Amino acid sequence: METKKNIAVVLSGCGVYDGAEIHESVFTMLAIARAGANYQVFAPDIEQYHVINHLTGQPADEKRNVLVEAARIARGNIKPLSEYDPKDYDAIMFPGGFGVAKNFSTFAFDGADCKVNEEVKNVILQTNKAGKPIGALCISPVIVAKVLEGAEVTIGNDKSTVEAIEAMGAKHRYTTHGEVVIDDKYKVATTPCYMLDATIDQIATGAENVVKAVIEMT
Amino acid sequence: METKKNIAVVLSGCGVYDGAEIHESVFTMLAIARAGANYQVFAPDIEQYHVINHLTGQPADEKRNVLVEAARIARGNIKPLSEYDPKDYDAIMFPGGFGVAKNFSTFAFDGADCKVNEEVKNVILQTNKAGKPIGALCISPVIVAKVLEGAEVTIGNDKSTVEAIEAMGAKHRYTTHGEVVIDDKYKVATTPCYMLDATIDQIATGAENVVKAVIEMT
Repeated sequence: METKKNIAVVLSGCGVYDGAEIHESVFTMLAIARAGANYQVFAPDIEQYHVINHLTGQPADEKRNVLVEAARIARGNIKPLSEYDPKDYDAIMFPGGFGVAKNFSTFAFDGADCKVNEEVKNVILQTNKAGKPIGALCISPVIVAKVLEGAEVTIGNDKSTVEAIEAMGAKHRYTTHGEVVIDDKYKVATTPCYMLDATIDQIATGAENVVKAVIEMT
Repeated sequence: METKKNIAVVLSGCGVYDGAEIHESVFTMLAIARAGANYQVFAPDIEQYHVINHLTGQPADEKRNVLVEAARIARGNIKPLSEYDPKDYDAIMFPGGFGVAKNFSTFAFDGADCKVNEEVKNVILQTNKAGKPIGALCISPVIVAKVLEGAEVTIGNDKSTVEAIEAMGAKHRYTTHGEVVIDDKYKVATTPCYMLDATIDQIATGAENVVKAVIEMT
């Protein structure tokens, strides 16, 4: 009997404007389960850059923690990212959301010159060094492109984000709904999801396709 | 060309322990979209009963608003429940989560003797009076059973919840993963989801099945 694959899923909070995009996170977990693999959710134990009221779109006078909020999506079944070791997993995946551009990096503010959170950066580097595949949805490919120099990724067709990715020295390929770009050298699979103007069922399809691509590279 | 069905989805916050169960909410929205219908998310503009830290399971010294937090799942595309009118929708659906038992009602504390929030109660009564179907997942069938006397529902097989439902004068039918109980008289469709010990893909299947049953009754 073949052993089940284990896939780590890294969340940047809980909510598109200040954390992990919820639909992308849940559909990534669903796609892993439907592909017959196991998932384990992780998040760094750090404070969110800020809290956005998702009703008004305005910043709220609150502080929230990325790990504590991501635990909502994981139903409490979550580990601090410091406990992630590539040897225990067959692959790692990053759903999107502004948390990736605000909590995992400074991309929302600094574009191509952004810094990636040290812990997140090391997780990407160690996973790559261990020869394991990395999947990234939506805006998450920017942190992969920043850390793995020269990687080929997609975020869809947003001009300023494409320019930032190219300014990092990475390659970008234009895609539309559900399409996946695979970089065989770095074992990186990316898909645009809500970086395009998309419906919820298009997001589910994108997550299914990128999970499939990641599992094929394990 | 047939007009698309419009289905209202009512959320009780954002997170299983103090609000709407996120997977059930997202899969209900996905299933509606995949069935070719539109959804509109609603939530009451009320304070949550409390805030639970989903990492520790312990209450947090914070206040959060049901509508504001539910907006995270809806990506900001949400309306206050006060704007819901059954004439604009073909059906209404209630995903689960402790928010239903703590914010929408006092079921978590008072069981069969619980009170249902007046706004939520009126929404259920008006929808039923308008002859439109109601779908409920997980623990949500308890508020439907409380408001629509004698309705037949399922919450799976949890003994104390079944006893509470029967003490309300409603009928309960035992079910397992993905099964749906339909009450033709009240046009109510229910399914257990995370009231059972379930995997994420079983929740997606349960949501698909109850959405299908609701749409068939429209």
